[in-house]
Amino acid sequence: MSITMYSASVPVFVRMLGNLSKWLDKAESHAAAKKFDPSVFMASRLAPDMLPFPNQIQIACDSIKFGVARLSGVEAPKFEDNETTLAQLKERIAKTLAYVQSVSADQIDGTEDKDISIPRRSGVLVMKGEPYLRHYVMPTFYFHVTTAYALMRHNGVDLGKSDYLGLQ
Amino acid sequence: MSITMYSASVPVFVRMLGNLSKWLDKAESHAAAKKFDPSVFMASRLAPDMLPFPNQIQIACDSIKFGVARLSGVEAPKFEDNETTLAQLKERIAKTLAYVQSVSADQIDGTEDKDISIPRRSGVLVMKGEPYLRHYVMPTFYFHVTTAYALMRHNGVDLGKSDYLGLQ
Repeated sequence: MSITMYSASVPVFVRMLGNLSKWLDKAESHAAAKKFDPSVFMASRLAPDMLPFPNQIQIACDSIKFGVARLSGVEAPKFEDNETTLAQLKERIAKTLAYVQSVSADQIDGTEDKDISIPRRSGVLVMKGEPYLRHYVMPTFYFHVTTAYALMRHNGVDLGKSDYLGLQ
Repeated sequence: MSITMYSASVPVFVRMLGNLSKWLDKAESHAAAKKFDPSVFMASRLAPDMLPFPNQIQIACDSIKFGVARLSGVEAPKFEDNETTLAQLKERIAKTLAYVQSVSADQIDGTEDKDISIPRRSGVLVMKGEPYLRHYVMPTFYFHVTTAYALMRHNGVDLGKSDYLGLQ
């Protein structure tokens, strides 16, 4: 089987969002074992001018929601960014997964040269589909997933490389 | 142009290693401006049981060096993991870039179904080329690049999303 725009994207999103959801379970257990309020995670940041934990997960979800929507042309659901608990963040992940999995390979394959417009504060950035996937969607997604992971590790959650990769 | 194993991998490595090298320049300037010894970065960790800064960059480099070597069959150079300064880390990045760029598209394309053996502490993991690239090389690479970025941000280096993505 040859690599395609779909095979290079959606399976990665599904795998990593599944992993992220399991890390949140471990964060919940960690808070219970150490007897602290899990809302402590919500205010956690790696630097005073970096976004806190829930935003990292919201943006990780949105980066691929918009990625899939722009490539496939399938309208994405709107989410409110109002999560305040680990359970709500897990729901956000589940809703994102449901949308991403609702799009078929046919709807994403062949979009290598599609013109994609990305609204940014500095103006609209226009990229072709493949560079958009590899130089914008993927690094943004991994940035926020890894930062969420780092925040959990920084706060003592027992996670390791197998959890990160989702390997046995 | 259709996406290929090469187009989905090497351009990403080249872009992100170039970005990483520029972040190290900013780390150097930050230390000079704040009058602290840049070797402070070397001991920085996000959690007591996470690897420190130089290891994050060494492993980022090795993850793609081994990725390219295993997919292409082109022998990779050996590096000693003995970097103790930002300048040496930049050299490590440059040497990794030189190797990655020495491999041609022809040598990586068509490796979707190639059997790849990954030696791990728990035994040898065998994966096909495409899942190896998308579920092992890419997440490992992004993990260590993002963790290096996070450590610089945590230590006050002035970096933002454009630096991370390498966009203007």
